[in-house]
Amino acid sequence: MRLLTLRTSDGTKAVRQDGGTLTEIDGFSDVGALLKDAAWEEKAKGASGATHALDGADLAAVVPFPGKIICVGHNYRNHIQEMGREIPEHPTLFAKYAESLIGPNDDLALPQESDTVDWEAELAVVIGKKGRRITEADAQDHIAGYSVLNDISMRDYQFRTIQWLQGKTWEKSTPFGPALVTKEEFSAGPLMTSTVDGEVQQSTPTGDLVFTPEFLVSYISTIITLNPGDVIATGTPGGVGHAQDPKRYLQEGQLLVTTIEGLGQLANRVVKEA
Amino acid sequence: MRLLTLRTSDGTKAVRQDGGTLTEIDGFSDVGALLKDAAWEEKAKGASGATHALDGADLAAVVPFPGKIICVGHNYRNHIQEMGREIPEHPTLFAKYAESLIGPNDDLALPQESDTVDWEAELAVVIGKKGRRITEADAQDHIAGYSVLNDISMRDYQFRTIQWLQGKTWEKSTPFGPALVTKEEFSAGPLMTSTVDGEVQQSTPTGDLVFTPEFLVSYISTIITLNPGDVIATGTPGGVGHAQDPKRYLQEGQLLVTTIEGLGQLANRVVKEA
Repeated sequence: MRLLTLRTSDGTKAVRQDGGTLTEIDGFSDVGALLKDAAWEEKAKGASGATHALDGADLAAVVPFPGKIICVGHNYRNHIQEMGREIPEHPTLFAKYAESLIGPNDDLALPQESDTVDWEAELAVVIGKKGRRITEADAQDHIAGYSVLNDISMRDYQFRTIQWLQGKTWEKSTPFGPALVTKEEFSAGPLMTSTVDGEVQQSTPTGDLVFTPEFLVSYISTIITLNPGDVIATGTPGGVGHAQDPKRYLQEGQLLVTTIEGLGQLANRVVKEA
Repeated sequence: MRLLTLRTSDGTKAVRQDGGTLTEIDGFSDVGALLKDAAWEEKAKGASGATHALDGADLAAVVPFPGKIICVGHNYRNHIQEMGREIPEHPTLFAKYAESLIGPNDDLALPQESDTVDWEAELAVVIGKKGRRITEADAQDHIAGYSVLNDISMRDYQFRTIQWLQGKTWEKSTPFGPALVTKEEFSAGPLMTSTVDGEVQQSTPTGDLVFTPEFLVSYISTIITLNPGDVIATGTPGGVGHAQDPKRYLQEGQLLVTTIEGLGQLANRVVKEA
């Protein structure tokens, strides 16, 4: 099942996608609100609200306001190597705030303050059931499904200090979507790519993760309760612009496309803020 | 004006404190919900709801569910020195999630997984008005007021990787309150202390901040919109347990008291999780 958050003239709506048709799941303003209902899966499956065409639909970030966005660094061997790090014993965790998120086809805001804006294609795990100290064996029971996220990083701000947050959470910079694909239809494995104006930058199977979604759910929930709608961005593979020689960053007008086979595609035009 | 979040048998309530009396501000379940109303100040001043005695009141974290908790590292010279760092050019920012917060007199959860749980007394700034790219000159206009927060840190997890988040956001570990003291009644300057079982650990004037509240509001809002109820934890002074010789950490049964003159006191019993 594919769930999306659609912008309409009457506000956003959680919708189910069947082929080219989006069906409103009545009573839920977005996929995050839907996931807070314990019967979300049943209600999504049974929904029969107003319909819209997928073609031309104005989509919001699939979960527009996650309670937590927990990002993982250093989680693909080829990215760890290009950044000059060792294979880690523990996952590196940092945060991003919800105000950073944009929809799958929204403009990506290039701020006046940074000219080192870089891409990081990532597999996102979306939580569907609350839990603390979840075992790896039980983790799938707490995962609603998967989506695509590009953890856009302002490298100058990221490395101004030893903590990355200020380079990771710029306003309206992080594409997330297009759909939450429920877990019975996807597991980490398929190819993830990012392209800039059609030129491939990153291309690595999501099965190459050092720390799996199940491990991350268990590790993070040891520390803090995971709640429905929380998002784990599982890290990016090699091919970021900052690690290329010469370094490459996003420029005004470029089109960044981020794809995971089986999940879908984000296509975001880079637009300099006024 | 002093605003608090009171737990009642009918859920939490935003209340105004006048001496020993708490008056409900009708229609608002907590101080965070109140701040989202543009007329919050007027409504709080004019409130005349049900009253409760402050003595024996069961208080929640003053803003129980901030949209963002943005923490500042390395912001007092004596703490920067004890951690062996240089005076920074830019503020070091990291995050904490709302599930970490506890009330001013709640038990502080000592997890089974860490035995290096440390204190970090901090002045908290609470946002009262939305803004992006706020100038330092305008920052006071966006600040609702101030409170006390102890940025409890699990040092083993904090230093497992190069990003601190996983040591900073353990469930039910971060006391926050007791009150939001509105800005006309407080500015950074007064003494902040932390004690463990009555023994002083930290004692530094909040006026010694390297980066002021106004600077931080301006700096952070360059990156991302600040919204009402967002919290900036402005960093801790010298005297943390991890920097003492020998190192000291919180132990089962100890009482951690965190005080800022003019703002109030947090008194939290350290209780090992089952």
